[in-house]
Amino acid sequence: MHQYIHVQHQVILDLIDSKEFQRLRRIKQLGTASLTFHGAEHSRFSHSLGVYEISRRICDIFHRNYSVEKIGTGGWDDGERLITLCAALLHDVGHGPYSHTFEHIFQTNHEALTVQIICSPKTEIYQILNRVEAGFPEKVASVIQKKYPNPQVIQMISSQIDADRMDYLLRDAYFTGTEYGTFDLTRILQVIRPYQGGITFGMNGMHAVEDYIVSRYQMYVQVYFHPTSRAMEVILEHLLQRAKEVYLENKEIFSNHSPLLIPFLENHFTMDDYLRLDDGVLNTYFNHWLDESDSLLKDLSYRFLNRKPLKSCRFDKQNQEKLLQTMRSLVEKTGFNPTYYTAVHSSFDLPYDFYRPESNKQRTQIELQEKDGTLVELSKVSQLVEALAGQGQGDQRFYFPKEMVDFSLQDNYDLFSETYKQFNAHIHNGALIE
Amino acid sequence: MHQYIHVQHQVILDLIDSKEFQRLRRIKQLGTASLTFHGAEHSRFSHSLGVYEISRRICDIFHRNYSVEKIGTGGWDDGERLITLCAALLHDVGHGPYSHTFEHIFQTNHEALTVQIICSPKTEIYQILNRVEAGFPEKVASVIQKKYPNPQVIQMISSQIDADRMDYLLRDAYFTGTEYGTFDLTRILQVIRPYQGGITFGMNGMHAVEDYIVSRYQMYVQVYFHPTSRAMEVILEHLLQRAKEVYLENKEIFSNHSPLLIPFLENHFTMDDYLRLDDGVLNTYFNHWLDESDSLLKDLSYRFLNRKPLKSCRFDKQNQEKLLQTMRSLVEKTGFNPTYYTAVHSSFDLPYDFYRPESNKQRTQIELQEKDGTLVELSKVSQLVEALAGQGQGDQRFYFPKEMVDFSLQDNYDLFSETYKQFNAHIHNGALIE
Amino acid sequence: MHQYIHVQHQVILDLIDSKEFQRLRRIKQLGTASLTFHGAEHSRFSHSLGVYEISRRICDIFHRNYSVEKIGTGGWDDGERLITLCAALLHDVGHGPYSHTFEHIFQTNHEALTVQIICSPKTEIYQILNRVEAGFPEKVASVIQKKYPNPQVIQMISSQIDADRMDYLLRDAYFTGTEYGTFDLTRILQVIRPYQGGITFGMNGMHAVEDYIVSRYQMYVQVYFHPTSRAMEVILEHLLQRAKEVYLENKEIFSNHSPLLIPFLENHFTMDDYLRLDDGVLNTYFNHWLDESDSLLKDLSYRFLNRKPLKSCRFDKQNQEKLLQTMRSLVEKTGFNPTYYTAVHSSFDLPYDFYRPESNKQRTQIELQEKDGTLVELSKVSQLVEALAGQGQGDQRFYFPKEMVDFSLQDNYDLFSETYKQFNAHIHNGALIE
Amino acid sequence: MHQYIHVQHQVILDLIDSKEFQRLRRIKQLGTASLTFHGAEHSRFSHSLGVYEISRRICDIFHRNYSVEKIGTGGWDDGERLITLCAALLHDVGHGPYSHTFEHIFQTNHEALTVQIICSPKTEIYQILNRVEAGFPEKVASVIQKKYPNPQVIQMISSQIDADRMDYLLRDAYFTGTEYGTFDLTRILQVIRPYQGGITFGMNGMHAVEDYIVSRYQMYVQVYFHPTSRAMEVILEHLLQRAKEVYLENKEIFSNHSPLLIPFLENHFTMDDYLRLDDGVLNTYFNHWLDESDSLLKDLSYRFLNRKPLKSCRFDKQNQEKLLQTMRSLVEKTGFNPTYYTAVHSSFDLPYDFYRPESNKQRTQIELQEKDGTLVELSKVSQLVEALAGQGQGDQRFYFPKEMVDFSLQDNYDLFSETYKQFNAHIHNGALIE
Repeated sequence: MHQYIHVQHQVILDLIDSKEFQRLRRIKQLGTASLTFHGAEHSRFSHSLGVYEISRRICDIFHRNYSVEKIGTGGWDDGERLITLCAALLHDVGHGPYSHTFEHIFQTNHEALTVQIICSPKTEIYQILNRVEAGFPEKVASVIQKKYPNPQVIQMISSQIDADRMDYLLRDAYFTGTEYGTFDLTRILQVIRPYQGGITFGMNGMHAVEDYIVSRYQMYVQVYFHPTSRAMEVILEHLLQRAKEVYLENKEIFSNHSPLLIPFLENHFTMDDYLRLDDGVLNTYFNHWLDESDSLLKDLSYRFLNRKPLKSCRFDKQNQEKLLQTMRSLVEKTGFNPTYYTAVHSSFDLPYDFYRPESNKQRTQIELQEKDGTLVELSKVSQLVEALAGQGQGDQRFYFPKEMVDFSLQDNYDLFSETYKQFNAHIHNGALIE
Repeated sequence: MHQYIHVQHQVILDLIDSKEFQRLRRIKQLGTASLTFHGAEHSRFSHSLGVYEISRRICDIFHRNYSVEKIGTGGWDDGERLITLCAALLHDVGHGPYSHTFEHIFQTNHEALTVQIICSPKTEIYQILNRVEAGFPEKVASVIQKKYPNPQVIQMISSQIDADRMDYLLRDAYFTGTEYGTFDLTRILQVIRPYQGGITFGMNGMHAVEDYIVSRYQMYVQVYFHPTSRAMEVILEHLLQRAKEVYLENKEIFSNHSPLLIPFLENHFTMDDYLRLDDGVLNTYFNHWLDESDSLLKDLSYRFLNRKPLKSCRFDKQNQEKLLQTMRSLVEKTGFNPTYYTAVHSSFDLPYDFYRPESNKQRTQIELQEKDGTLVELSKVSQLVEALAGQGQGDQRFYFPKEMVDFSLQDNYDLFSETYKQFNAHIHNGALIE
Repeated sequence: MHQYIHVQHQVILDLIDSKEFQRLRRIKQLGTASLTFHGAEHSRFSHSLGVYEISRRICDIFHRNYSVEKIGTGGWDDGERLITLCAALLHDVGHGPYSHTFEHIFQTNHEALTVQIICSPKTEIYQILNRVEAGFPEKVASVIQKKYPNPQVIQMISSQIDADRMDYLLRDAYFTGTEYGTFDLTRILQVIRPYQGGITFGMNGMHAVEDYIVSRYQMYVQVYFHPTSRAMEVILEHLLQRAKEVYLENKEIFSNHSPLLIPFLENHFTMDDYLRLDDGVLNTYFNHWLDESDSLLKDLSYRFLNRKPLKSCRFDKQNQEKLLQTMRSLVEKTGFNPTYYTAVHSSFDLPYDFYRPESNKQRTQIELQEKDGTLVELSKVSQLVEALAGQGQGDQRFYFPKEMVDFSLQDNYDLFSETYKQFNAHIHNGALIE
Repeated sequence: MHQYIHVQHQVILDLIDSKEFQRLRRIKQLGTASLTFHGAEHSRFSHSLGVYEISRRICDIFHRNYSVEKIGTGGWDDGERLITLCAALLHDVGHGPYSHTFEHIFQTNHEALTVQIICSPKTEIYQILNRVEAGFPEKVASVIQKKYPNPQVIQMISSQIDADRMDYLLRDAYFTGTEYGTFDLTRILQVIRPYQGGITFGMNGMHAVEDYIVSRYQMYVQVYFHPTSRAMEVILEHLLQRAKEVYLENKEIFSNHSPLLIPFLENHFTMDDYLRLDDGVLNTYFNHWLDESDSLLKDLSYRFLNRKPLKSCRFDKQNQEKLLQTMRSLVEKTGFNPTYYTAVHSSFDLPYDFYRPESNKQRTQIELQEKDGTLVELSKVSQLVEALAGQGQGDQRFYFPKEMVDFSLQDNYDLFSETYKQFNAHIHNGALIE
């Protein structure tokens, strides 16, 4: 892990010291995944520094070997360095606690908030950036919005092989302790190069880029889609949902002990409200809720804080909808409300895709450069990438209480033994069967 | 890092899943050091698993090579395995948030709390242990209290070279990214062996043990005593102190928004109260206090949450007390209350010491075993350890606001320029001078 | 890298100390690849220890978790341990210097020689093994010949995922410094298990096994097939070929200074003759040949010893045979004998294949085990492996003197400038074109 | 390990490709130590590249942060870069096979030969260097001879903390698999800086430099002084000594089969003769000598090639000279010639020393720089270094045949059992006793 971060600009130091950026120390990079991979306790703060550092190294290489002074059109203009580094550092500054789930329940949007934090005159970040020159904050934001005119800058921060992804794959692999996410960053930095249309890689580095795509695929299926982390996400989602419901009936219990969440429960929040949140704030409120009277709020808080994940099995979305109904009603029979204690959860991701004009989500495809300058799209020359290109990876799972399959947890086993037998008869080799 | 933890007993799995143990996930191993070493965001949870894992490996080695059946008196009785592993796993379960500082301000004691958590019939941990056999919780506690009859078990968990220290040195080195804390655990595990009086090491492993002591020394002076982490500890201490003072005048502001801290502010807390606390709870309350009217409470909360460390210089305790007074009054002249914005802070540790009958803190000395069974104390055969033995390592620092030396932070520089000049004239090469 | 090798049997220690095994210290594992990857200077000796060590760890796991006493039929019989470890240690003992090339020129066969060394009563290895029990050497040999009755033992030493391959991939990756060959050995050892038909892996370890296949593929295309290593192989092959030709005309020059090679030049060698050879012997004779009068022998020796590789380009075997003729004649025009200074060289390998009854080379396919015991072939559940299965990987290259493309090496450039231009016009983006 | 070597000058590429430099591939860095640490099979070639690479990184840092243009007097003049890099790469080019022992027996001198190889007009190295400018080879040689006017250049290549030592400690640690030799190179490169008198280190890097000295000490006592490697050195020394004696009586047997060694046996060799030697040449001649009639030559060759080390025990030079005589005569009684089968062998090294005007071997002491520019000698501020400074580390051992203590090797045990008993009675806990 590139633990040493080389900072050469005072602006960067000031941004790191800003309160909006320091807040990222209190937000875990991987959310509930740290509950599965116990080493993965790193924050969005250290990831953001890492993206900065990889970008800095790319700028150094571009300036040394491919500056516009040396190779002319398509070369790197080192005047772009500061804006690139600021965008790299700040690209995730709009993230909040347990982003994915929180956004879903409270309709926040971390990308929009990133732009807002950079461009609001009252943030420390804006003030630091604006001291560089008037309009600089907006320029930095435009890189993150992919509207900046220089595609080299945009692609370094945001493409299918950018400083962001390279850092998080290596970092998450290091801290989860898996070997899967490792790829040869040093080699990739040897072959990366600018061209007029953005960023490309020398053809002799094809296998290093291919290995990066394979690592990305492995991290998705092995780490990011881990069934236990998702089980905890399901509990969190149901818990926040329940809080919204309880709030409608009894606002006081929140206003006393959970003040910073009120604007979100009210569905009327400002950027300042958002910047007060972090993982610890949510966890502390769940801790407070252990003392509340609503039994669902209390039990889900207990399960989340003390890591009591739901269990799950794979199922087939096309053909097993009806069977799911049966499973849910069996869960209900044993006394669990299926709305809060069962769920279906899908995880899908595209490890790589080439440009498809017909697609509604355009991707910048990865291109390799031959000696004569010709560009070749990656999946054309790598059969491994071809096998993954355009193939959504993931699975669909049905979640249910552990009590359904682990009878040692059940005080009332005798009462429901027939129900348990029926339930278990539908699970075989980790999947739902008729 | 031994990321794979091998668990062979259901008891261990149940202990890990207990709510008292899961709580350690929310307490950082290194407290404020993560504000200096940004990678060091690991928790007491993962450290505790690591101590368990090293102990398990030692038990395996003892059982394979030195079981009492094989070598007789002085050999390892594998009937001690479960108690050893439980004590290893639970040895830190009484730690709270920012332990060192919190204990100092609120008179808590993590060692006593560890024993209490293990021995209180209402904790999940007690119930799990008591299912093994009646009296088992008390036995586990007695290991941690160093009262258990078998010295091999005690020394594996607690001595100058135990599973606890071996894990935290390697783990903290890994996550801070330093090279200093690394030593050759594999080699140490090859030469570790039981004897009647406890644990010893084969003489041929002398240099591995020596290197462990040197690594410990390096981690202390380089990581644990880092001036910036201590600067943040100073702020935290002053902040909690200020909260106590404010509470005496105005209890309501805390009872509303900081409920879980009340028992401690009241100086009347139970173990249950203690088990509700974690890093996030304290940070969240500091976050709430940003909205309070007491300007000291508010400013110190801001400085802690947003990492605004004090600056410092070394000084000589013997001869510079009077000069410190001058420095404090110069700080006061510029408008900072020296009670809250200056401090002296000492960090000292003994990397190793041999047994000294006259000392009030007895240490189990490290002994090496010759081929003929003779034991030799480590510092007798290692000149490096001899150089460190009995030598307190550390330094004393005077802390003050960064504003005193960084004029860019001062709006009122012109007003106080003479005071600043005087102050800075007394700091040279990082130390206080006349 | 598992640098610590745990030896528990005196037999294994004695085998390691035997002169036939010590000789492997003087034979590089990767032959000419160390001339491309300068760190890859490790020997077949350390690889053989590594295969032993991985096998030992597998035996430990099988014995602990899957012994025949515990799980009955299909379990591991620890009485097989010693034979397994001996076969693991000795599986490569018949390798000679630069095996691939040497075998090709002198018709030796390292597999047959391995068996012969183990079974010849006069070798130290035979005598050590025979002390275990009469017939033991032949049993060990039968494992290597895949004739031993227990398929678990055979597959641990020799299958598509065996201790041999796992060690060399990790070892070669470590010493070449690539990241490509790394896979998660710890994870694979967690899911490996015996069954009646041999060795299988738990389904939950699918991605670890998949990653191993991908790593194997990457090591082939990136390291083992590297064009420069193959260029040095071409030179070595031509050099040994030339020695055979010169020997027919003038035996004395060899009998004086290259005595240990005579039996091979005579095409009449014994196992004892073979056991005298190592990398240093061949290199020393090449060194001697620098003083001989045959200019081809001398020049090829110079080029091999001082690493002057040929250059190369890819070509298409189907359609470019005629063009190759043109290229060769252009080389000849500039004064190089194309028999010795050009070559076509193909490298192909199958990273993985499932069982194909119709194939003449049967492979043991990799199978994963579901919870209910069902076995599933790997490529059925991994799309990455499916993409690689049965697909020969590699390329074909035309080799020629560097002088043809690097004119700075040519004293007589003016004389042949037209020839050079023609030659270079046929090479574009590293491949042959019309 | 810094496997990627960045070469920016054609001169460096040409030097690497020269035959004098390529020859280093065939000479192991650690000689007989690879017979103790089986992974340590790396060559002087890869070490030399490593020293080049560290020097290149230091030049980059000096140029970026401390160029003479920026900081004036005492700054780094980047015009020195090429000469520095050439000296770094070539500093060991005069090494031969098993240097230490070979030099001792044949009176060669690798430092003088390094200078000769660089300055002889007929070497490829000279020709490459002389193309830079007339006189350049001599300048490069003067750096190695410590006569070059710029002390920064000299100290980067040769001082108590130079690129040479930093590379070999890290490299030897990596390949032996020990943890002892690791220190934080990245950190040292952050604090290294030029000054008028040479090279110094920022005071804030004190502990990194201290740790380097401790690592150096550890590598000496743990790896470089390992008793088994020295046992093999003793055999090699006796073998070469015996060859000289036999040669005086019978030159033919060498002239036929060991031609490249003749000039050395004749004690009349040229640089060209020396450049023909490598590890493989010596080993091949030992292999040839297995067929000779002199039984000592034959047996010592067998023992060296097949790794049959002598055994040893520590002894006290002052007081045990007489006892050594007894031990030697006991060895003789059992039939071993003590001249060839016993030895005393001392290994001593000074891990660090400060400048001592009275010493005959001047050392450049390591100095740290305070903020105000003051230099402080290392042992003044580090108690660990103080403990090691000026203290010779090492031990003295008496070597004897393994047969004296391992009776399983002795066919004639009954005959000499009394002698063996007497011999063994004098060895206790690995040391000689009365």
